[in-house]
Amino acid sequence: MDLMGYVREVAPRVNKFIEEVVKGSPQTLYDAAMHLIRAGGKRLRPITVLLSARLVGGAEAEDKALPGAAAVEILHNFTLIHDDIIDKDEFRRGVPTVHKLWGEGMAIVAGDLLYAYAYRALLKAEERGVDPVRVKEAVKYLTEGAIRVAEGQALDMLLSRRLEASLDEYIRMVEGKTAALFMSSAAIGAVLAGGDQAIIAHLREVMRLAGIAFQIRDDILGLVADEKTLGKPVYSDIREGKRTVLVIYALRKLSDGDRKRLLAILGKGNASREELEEAAELIKSTGAVEFADSLAEDYARRSMEKLSRVSEMARDLEALRLLRELIEYLVKRRY
Amino acid sequence: MDLMGYVREVAPRVNKFIEEVVKGSPQTLYDAAMHLIRAGGKRLRPITVLLSARLVGGAEAEDKALPGAAAVEILHNFTLIHDDIIDKDEFRRGVPTVHKLWGEGMAIVAGDLLYAYAYRALLKAEERGVDPVRVKEAVKYLTEGAIRVAEGQALDMLLSRRLEASLDEYIRMVEGKTAALFMSSAAIGAVLAGGDQAIIAHLREVMRLAGIAFQIRDDILGLVADEKTLGKPVYSDIREGKRTVLVIYALRKLSDGDRKRLLAILGKGNASREELEEAAELIKSTGAVEFADSLAEDYARRSMEKLSRVSEMARDLEALRLLRELIEYLVKRRY
Repeated sequence: MDLMGYVREVAPRVNKFIEEVVKGSPQTLYDAAMHLIRAGGKRLRPITVLLSARLVGGAEAEDKALPGAAAVEILHNFTLIHDDIIDKDEFRRGVPTVHKLWGEGMAIVAGDLLYAYAYRALLKAEERGVDPVRVKEAVKYLTEGAIRVAEGQALDMLLSRRLEASLDEYIRMVEGKTAALFMSSAAIGAVLAGGDQAIIAHLREVMRLAGIAFQIRDDILGLVADEKTLGKPVYSDIREGKRTVLVIYALRKLSDGDRKRLLAILGKGNASREELEEAAELIKSTGAVEFADSLAEDYARRSMEKLSRVSEMARDLEALRLLRELIEYLVKRRY
Repeated sequence: MDLMGYVREVAPRVNKFIEEVVKGSPQTLYDAAMHLIRAGGKRLRPITVLLSARLVGGAEAEDKALPGAAAVEILHNFTLIHDDIIDKDEFRRGVPTVHKLWGEGMAIVAGDLLYAYAYRALLKAEERGVDPVRVKEAVKYLTEGAIRVAEGQALDMLLSRRLEASLDEYIRMVEGKTAALFMSSAAIGAVLAGGDQAIIAHLREVMRLAGIAFQIRDDILGLVADEKTLGKPVYSDIREGKRTVLVIYALRKLSDGDRKRLLAILGKGNASREELEEAAELIKSTGAVEFADSLAEDYARRSMEKLSRVSEMARDLEALRLLRELIEYLVKRRY
């Protein structure tokens, strides 16, 4: 089976688990909370949980890890709802964002609700025979992930307000905003499957590197992708003044005049389509896309190398192969 | 020792624990997250945790329950930060709200960060010798509380947009918005101290009733209290169109003309001081304050009765006495 075949097989099980767990009233709140989850998404974090569990515990560990897979997807969707409010984004996954449909207040609470449901989903691992001490450990990893996501999100906002950011600051921000939840996903899968500290630490590092590669690819797609395949507006990073790796690189390479011009458009909330395109062209003219491409490849390569060193510990070689495919997908995807 | 003496003794320990746990970078995010916690607050939920723990496990259980006490206060403060954004409130505890000082985006993330830290604080109970299975149980109660708070908050918003709400709907909303976290506080204290299902269920019911009484008192204070002692603007409930128990009662009792007049002012964002005072007078004219007063007293009395039935299970009679004082304070407080 290839990765896409595996996704087609397990995604419906993750979705079903989420639908069964996230239930209650008032209905409006639950509709808002489930809106983006139902709109689609690639389920990359649940896949990370399930493959990590299989790697450590074999195919039979998948069932035990399903609550963890649901938990990270629920947590991820909570961050999307809140991020969309913060960034004033109006579309995601091809549908209007939660705050566009239900208003900001309801969207804030819908996100908060999902946050709690991430824990409730995870706690259900005990019903599947996972030792309660391991469930508690998984809760710890979910919590660490949530803390680092918030830190990364705050850093992202703070960097957007500054003139320049360094590549180091960018990586630190991305480790929080994006990689942390992939790291927690691997850890949760491994710990629910009975893994020890060594393999958990190892898989976390694999996903730290892969998560960074994933975000760099995301930055690139935000500049070069087609709006329709992306499911959200391109150039919104520019409008929001985001210090993507492309912007950081371009600001260093541009002449003083072009640099000023780019800075004048970055973060300009009411920038016209022409201005956004002008900014995009300025960024591309520096070779920023090629630089980011090779940086992403580099992180993906390091992630793969790290992964190859767990192969002797792996109890499920198909899972190992699928994890490799996943990392490759994270860095090469076109949307 | 009386309740205030007890609060003076334990509040600094709760605060110190929170300061030690909630640490990280970026500094701006942590300043925003800690702003309201540092501005004061009565620490009623931590006190509920600690007294429940003592009741069940004796004085030596207090130390084990301290992480739980910190957790519920952290969770409470996360909800305050988000509520203030939703309600557009500018002052709380006598200081500007988080979103007024740091902007809405940072305030949303600061709340999200605290949410995760509530779990991190609670997980530290294990370092104090609590069995990890009990820690996991406490996590479950924290999660249930968080879910019900979000449901209550959503119901509050939905009721504000409706013409009429019933007393039943109000009680259901308040059970979520306010009582749920008091219930979780009692459960967390009891479970960390080694309590069994029976006493946990019992204490949860005590705090459900007390929490409702507390919110009714809050509604009354929002109409009759002095702005300075309250630390936040009076009449904001009216401006936001909140269906408080007073409003629900008044809408039933007023003549058609006065009822229309009240409905015209309720939820009018730009209502003048005169209009707000007019609405307050209309509400008071129906005897709503007296009705709410006796309703709060009734819930407090039922809470006390329920509590008196745990006295034989209590291992710490001072804790029992202080819990009684706490319930009395919840319903009788002047700010």
